[in-house]
Amino acid sequence: MQVSYIAPLAKLIEQFRRLPGIGPKSAARLAYHVLEMDKDEAQALAQAILDAKEKVGYCSVCFNLTDCDPCRVCQAEGRDRTVICVVEDPRDVAAMERTREYRGLYHVLHGVLSPLDGIGPDQLRLAELLERLRQGDVREVIMATNPNVEGEATAMYIARLLKPLGVKVTRIAHGLPVGGDLEYADEVTLSKALENRREL
Amino acid sequence: MQVSYIAPLAKLIEQFRRLPGIGPKSAARLAYHVLEMDKDEAQALAQAILDAKEKVGYCSVCFNLTDCDPCRVCQAEGRDRTVICVVEDPRDVAAMERTREYRGLYHVLHGVLSPLDGIGPDQLRLAELLERLRQGDVREVIMATNPNVEGEATAMYIARLLKPLGVKVTRIAHGLPVGGDLEYADEVTLSKALENRREL
Ligand SMILES: [Zn+2]
Ligand SMILES: [Zn+2]
Repeated sequence: MQVSYIAPLAKLIEQFRRLPGIGPKSAARLAYHVLEMDKDEAQALAQAILDAKEKVGYCSVCFNLTDCDPCRVCQAEGRDRTVICVVEDPRDVAAMERTREYRGLYHVLHGVLSPLDGIGPDQLRLAELLERLRQGDVREVIMATNPNVEGEATAMYIARLLKPLGVKVTRIAHGLPVGGDLEYADEVTLSKALENRREL
Repeated sequence: MQVSYIAPLAKLIEQFRRLPGIGPKSAARLAYHVLEMDKDEAQALAQAILDAKEKVGYCSVCFNLTDCDPCRVCQAEGRDRTVICVVEDPRDVAAMERTREYRGLYHVLHGVLSPLDGIGPDQLRLAELLERLRQGDVREVIMATNPNVEGEATAMYIARLLKPLGVKVTRIAHGLPVGGDLEYADEVTLSKALENRREL
């Protein structure tokens, strides 16, 4: 009989392989590492996965990830409720927050317009954004979609969509490297981009 | 109030960061991926971690990882019980098994001699190896420690230790790239190295 991996180990390697950016060798390395962990450590890792799934959902106002509803940003006393920053993804909210420059609210689209992938306006949280704007307090919407083709097209589309509401729509400046990913921008670049935003 | 990550997400990122080869950006990417998984998928991942810890231990004969004791190799009818291949690590057993060339048994040292790291003969499973050899069936011990300084020194040390028992001790050939890692050797190289083993 030839054996390579015993079943529970093979299963764990397979699970790790499903994660993004984890190839077969990384998956095996991670699985063996888990076997070498203390039982407490392995349980903490498993529990963190379950807790994240269990306790984290989307804010019913801004659609950012949250463990309470409305989320902490939407609830916060000290934030400027007249400005909404529109981003593609919850990761981008985290990136904006790390700048410590932005004091307004957010709206997470959960995607960008991408006709080839079948993502049109109805697949984004646009109806909910319009509803928020109709409530009247918001004076400026900052389009902070990624500085690439889809992000620009989505920003332009939303700018046109919001025009009739009389709200000012701005675009974060191209301080970000074109074609880059907002999530991975450093804090200074992102602060600069925010500061140099222009009206669309 | 400025927030970047909500608590359950921050905790999950922190847990992923503890894994080998996972930097802060990979950890965040993995954590967000978990949030995007189906609940079933996240549970399967968590359960695979718990199961691996729960069900996998060391074989009391060869000290390889196993979910039964003795392990499947030690129990198998078809294996040659007169040959023991000594390796550093359970990963090396998996690598040897992938060659489909080797039909003998194993003994996993769980390390190599490394005086600077405080690893001497007592930290390896050498007493247990001697005990297996004293039972008399074994005619050859193949030293398959890694082809680097510590691996060679450990192989030489064990060869000298076993001399008085009159058992043949061989060393896998340098078909492996010197300085390389046995675990990552391809099957052909490892088969070759096994075939060209020499007596120490
Ligand atoms: Zn919110
Ligand atoms: Zn065994």
